Amino acid sequence: MRNDPLANIAQELQEADSVLIFPHILMDGDAMGSAAALCKALRGMGKDAYIVIEDKIPDYLMFLDRGYTVDIEHIGAADIGDIDVSICVDCGEKTRFPKRAELFYHGETKICIDHHVSSVGIGDYNYIDPEAAATGEIIFDLLVELGVDIDQEMAESLFAAITTDTGNFQYSNTTAHTHEIVIALYDCGLNSNKVSVALYENESFAKMQLHSKLIESAQMFADGEGVLAVCTQKMLKETGTLMEDTEGVVSSLRSIHGVQVAAFIKEQPDGSVKVSLRSKERGDVAAISQRHGGGGHVRAAGFNLEGVSLEETVALVIDEVTACL
Amino acid sequence: MRNDPLANIAQELQEADSVLIFPHILMDGDAMGSAAALCKALRGMGKDAYIVIEDKIPDYLMFLDRGYTVDIEHIGAADIGDIDVSICVDCGEKTRFPKRAELFYHGETKICIDHHVSSVGIGDYNYIDPEAAATGEIIFDLLVELGVDIDQEMAESLFAAITTDTGNFQYSNTTAHTHEIVIALYDCGLNSNKVSVALYENESFAKMQLHSKLIESAQMFADGEGVLAVCTQKMLKETGTLMEDTEGVVSSLRSIHGVQVAAFIKEQPDGSVKVSLRSKERGDVAAISQRHGGGGHVRAAGFNLEGVSLEETVALVIDEVTACL
Repeated sequence: MRNDPLANIAQELQEADSVLIFPHILMDGDAMGSAAALCKALRGMGKDAYIVIEDKIPDYLMFLDRGYTVDIEHIGAADIGDIDVSICVDCGEKTRFPKRAELFYHGETKICIDHHVSSVGIGDYNYIDPEAAATGEIIFDLLVELGVDIDQEMAESLFAAITTDTGNFQYSNTTAHTHEIVIALYDCGLNSNKVSVALYENESFAKMQLHSKLIESAQMFADGEGVLAVCTQKMLKETGTLMEDTEGVVSSLRSIHGVQVAAFIKEQPDGSVKVSLRSKERGDVAAISQRHGGGGHVRAAGFNLEGVSLEETVALVIDEVTACL
Repeated sequence: MRNDPLANIAQELQEADSVLIFPHILMDGDAMGSAAALCKALRGMGKDAYIVIEDKIPDYLMFLDRGYTVDIEHIGAADIGDIDVSICVDCGEKTRFPKRAELFYHGETKICIDHHVSSVGIGDYNYIDPEAAATGEIIFDLLVELGVDIDQEMAESLFAAITTDTGNFQYSNTTAHTHEIVIALYDCGLNSNKVSVALYENESFAKMQLHSKLIESAQMFADGEGVLAVCTQKMLKETGTLMEDTEGVVSSLRSIHGVQVAAFIKEQPDGSVKVSLRSKERGDVAAISQRHGGGGHVRAAGFNLEGVSLEETVALVIDEVTACL
């Protein structure tokens, strides 16, 4: 698949009257920030533009939605007139917006803008750049192509997209171009600290308490090169949290001095067990996961077990990880 | 006090044969990164350059020292010959290098490079720029002025300085110029992810456990707008940590959703109590601190209490913070 020039995509958008924007499910800062900046820009160009969603916007991203989103459940069949352009952002497979896939294909012209290497070009026009640190970088380039006068709100949405997807400019996907875009966003009135406070200073106390419990109960093994933590349904109940609130725990575990492989074991409501593995510089966790029917990369992988107790899972993980180090 | 042109400072360094560099006590990434980059550059110019320290380099910054540092305790009076230039970086008061102050003044020419607004110019040449997000930014400009061909190691030291002092480009001190410098560092071979892993993926397990205990035992008050945590000497003993390992706890507390003021109460070995306060958008914590003989800014302040129990301190903090909200 070849990318279409951004100029052609810009032209399609310029000629459209109605545009629907589709970020992926379980949206992150890049999906929401990119969609919000694009929606604001299109409305400024006089288009009838909306972001269609099918699940909840996470609390920490709510500030990016200034009347742009509409839930697919609130759209009746009668509401849907002609859609000139459907555009999916930060995703390129219909499994990433399953309840909205039909609506997406209802668009006269389908466009796909993404930076995930796994994306297949499902649009009539596709721009998938795995070298981009964030889809927000591509949206920035698209807005420039469109001749949009990027305002403070768009700048802050794009900053949110870029800073979250680069781990605040720390991940290896960050490039000089990433920083060049941020400089341009400052010229557009960006208050980066305001965005940062909104994104990161709204942590749920319950979630922080759950993380603390997990770190406190973590156990080191393999002479400190392995570490594991177990999250039970009981811990979720006690802290009033959901399993999705454990996001980030395995990265924290991996960040411990001397640790090469971190394992995070999650008890599911049906009694099955999910294992997430991360490695730092040594330890092929993809190989471990494949042996148990899972998959992933050398540095990040996982697998599910059924009919195995938590204690047995812990023993298995310690054995497997110790053997791979 | 007026700043001297960087060109004049560069000339002094160019003419020197021996240079001693003085980062501040309790060094952070900016102090160590700035000193390391400057030391490497000066050695490359054929100078006899060292970083003189008086306390331990924190573990997470050890990777920046490639044979540059010497402890003041290991320097005998006989070792000290002529010092052409003494240069303090990221500090501008002798209280920031008390055991080394005499040695600093032993330098024929004294230079001070810093970005702290509180710094007084103690050098014969001073360059104190409170607009700089990090002293690393000024050192970058100085290396350019010196005509140094910045290599990968210097680039990584400067990135460490800048990323730590800007909270990974999130704090309000971050400017377009900060990002411009990072772009230039990429051109010098910077591997930002390598630096980031070294800085942040070497957390002490004991420290993480202490933080977890503190978050778990934190208590909310004032309808969730206030939060406080107490660190006792017993908790330090149990986790095998020092009070300095609590760094970052009060920021974590402030990041809780809905919190306006976070208080962190530290029991000292002598039974006295230290209180650190942080506010988000409301709550003048400087006023509270001043009433108890302390000081600070509206958003970050603190005070010490003697002859008051931890329980009494907690009650006092709850009263004061509730009243200010």
